[in-house]
Amino acid sequence: MNAEWQMTNSGHGGNVHAWARAGGGSVDSVLDFSANINPLGLADSVQQAISQAINQVIHYPDAEAVLLKAAISSYYNVGVEAITAGNGAVELLYVLTHTLRPKRVLIPAPSFSEYQRAAKAAGAEVEYAYLSPANNFAVDIDAICDRLHHVDMVFIGNPNNPTGTLLPRGTLERLVSAAGQAGVLVVVDESFIDFISDGQAYTCRPLLKQYDNLVILHSLTKFYAIPGLRLGFALSHPQLASRLHAAKDPWNVNLIAQAAGVAALSDKCYQETSWRVVECEKRILYTGLQALAGFKPFLPSVNYILIDITATGQTAAKLRQTLAEQGILIRDCSNYPGLSPYYIRVAVKLHEQNKMLLKRLEQAVR
Amino acid sequence: MNAEWQMTNSGHGGNVHAWARAGGGSVDSVLDFSANINPLGLADSVQQAISQAINQVIHYPDAEAVLLKAAISSYYNVGVEAITAGNGAVELLYVLTHTLRPKRVLIPAPSFSEYQRAAKAAGAEVEYAYLSPANNFAVDIDAICDRLHHVDMVFIGNPNNPTGTLLPRGTLERLVSAAGQAGVLVVVDESFIDFISDGQAYTCRPLLKQYDNLVILHSLTKFYAIPGLRLGFALSHPQLASRLHAAKDPWNVNLIAQAAGVAALSDKCYQETSWRVVECEKRILYTGLQALAGFKPFLPSVNYILIDITATGQTAAKLRQTLAEQGILIRDCSNYPGLSPYYIRVAVKLHEQNKMLLKRLEQAVR
Repeated sequence: MNAEWQMTNSGHGGNVHAWARAGGGSVDSVLDFSANINPLGLADSVQQAISQAINQVIHYPDAEAVLLKAAISSYYNVGVEAITAGNGAVELLYVLTHTLRPKRVLIPAPSFSEYQRAAKAAGAEVEYAYLSPANNFAVDIDAICDRLHHVDMVFIGNPNNPTGTLLPRGTLERLVSAAGQAGVLVVVDESFIDFISDGQAYTCRPLLKQYDNLVILHSLTKFYAIPGLRLGFALSHPQLASRLHAAKDPWNVNLIAQAAGVAALSDKCYQETSWRVVECEKRILYTGLQALAGFKPFLPSVNYILIDITATGQTAAKLRQTLAEQGILIRDCSNYPGLSPYYIRVAVKLHEQNKMLLKRLEQAVR
Repeated sequence: MNAEWQMTNSGHGGNVHAWARAGGGSVDSVLDFSANINPLGLADSVQQAISQAINQVIHYPDAEAVLLKAAISSYYNVGVEAITAGNGAVELLYVLTHTLRPKRVLIPAPSFSEYQRAAKAAGAEVEYAYLSPANNFAVDIDAICDRLHHVDMVFIGNPNNPTGTLLPRGTLERLVSAAGQAGVLVVVDESFIDFISDGQAYTCRPLLKQYDNLVILHSLTKFYAIPGLRLGFALSHPQLASRLHAAKDPWNVNLIAQAAGVAALSDKCYQETSWRVVECEKRILYTGLQALAGFKPFLPSVNYILIDITATGQTAAKLRQTLAEQGILIRDCSNYPGLSPYYIRVAVKLHEQNKMLLKRLEQAVR
């Protein structure tokens, strides 16, 4: 297995294609802990919706995404006029920065690297608010509030990726309110919030009516295991939603993703099973990692766990390569600003898969 | 059937979803002449590729689109480093204008309305080079060359939509060369060129190596009948391709579209059948339209025909509504700058469908 796949442009997890090209094996055979995708895989209802949509791809997608937006509106209790549907949440990051062209943005570090990439793509300078492992990478909202006069846009992942920290809505409201007074836009990325069964208690959606400087990003590809289809949305003041619409390709969300999204949001059984399985397996995997010599996992809020492996004496790059040769992908986090070369991230998968991961990790650092 | 579908935001053809919502009927029952899609529909090879890809949507798409780019490189004889893969060609229009932020752009009128929408989205002012029906809407390259000092970007559809005019490569090279000296970027949209069996003789691809101010846009959704999947690409100097990559979502092309594109480009049988059918039916439909009292079709180069219906005394909006109530969609062209309210555009479909269209048009204006 050659090393080409380690040097891919995107620098993200989930690059099973590069792994397969490098001689790893078939994409279907990989055990991918590097992407934070629901381990239950495709819901039957979603698979059916996709199959039924195939014959309709001879038509353009619905540019107004009426059925999809209605489903989002109903499930998340938000007005249709607040919704911008996206070809994945990441597309909307770029639409947002290209449209608003911030000059300086503030981003916690470590966090999802597309925040800084999208900001830089639109010409912005990036300031980091470094999070400390000594403090379990907690986001210090007061420290961010103190720096609002420097910037015109702030990104906050809630839960944050890769650290897995989660802030209560009240804390974020302090930031949004202070930012509003300073003329700063706050982008809260809630792409993993669906994994929390009581996500309603944490989401900033109830703040949308009060604050026109709040944008919420939401992915539908993680929880519903459809990253290959691309599907997400932004929530904002309707006036900003109109601007985002005008700044993007009208057919950005493909027809199959729209059909899959509608089916996914109405599948209560899949949602409840996912919450139960992820909650249970998350605890088992976290406990198992704690018991491994040299591994220091951080308490996860959702379906992925950040781990400090300094005490194993191995770099994340080395451990990643060792496991990749066994058909197991983990996320080497060394390209995150704010992390040493000794951090990995693993997704929570199914019971037997997690057991296999624990065993292989133990063997790899023995 | 209510009139909601006539007032949709996009103002494009192919909006079968709005027609269905307005009470037109099922999307599968519509006869859509308003979108310029290959009447053969999905190739079997493409349908198979899509079906096989479904189970892989639990993975991210290949951010580097390696297989897709290899197929494009091989089929169109261009270097991989010149290719930017897109979520449809239209996405790349927006990526291009957001990245280069032109101040003034020059656009022939009438032409595809997304040129001006993408330019305005990035803050550009738009100048039109009006095409004259008296001259069969021919694009006057000398007139455009005379205006290069005003602008920093020029869009040319070749073939142009909705007029169906086609320029030889030599004529376009004059423009690209003059524009290069004036520091102006020329965007040649070849989204319909695949419908010409000798497209090699018209495409500007051979000019890419010589001119770094040339961008070619290419859709794969029209000829391969997959607009619902979104798939297209841009060709440019590798340096500009790198800039476009940095300015867009890395996962912009979904996994199913990538698989469909690879299958489509290797399906020689579908390609040859399409050329034969479209060439033959285009002539029959054109001749049939010429014979209809009050209809003045313009000579088409590819799979759609612009028609002046002034002499029928009916507006395009009225004719469109009449046919829509019978389950037939045509493109009312009255929202194109440069056209009166008396122009329609129809796609070339299969023989019996075209016969049906001719019959219904005749009845509608009788």
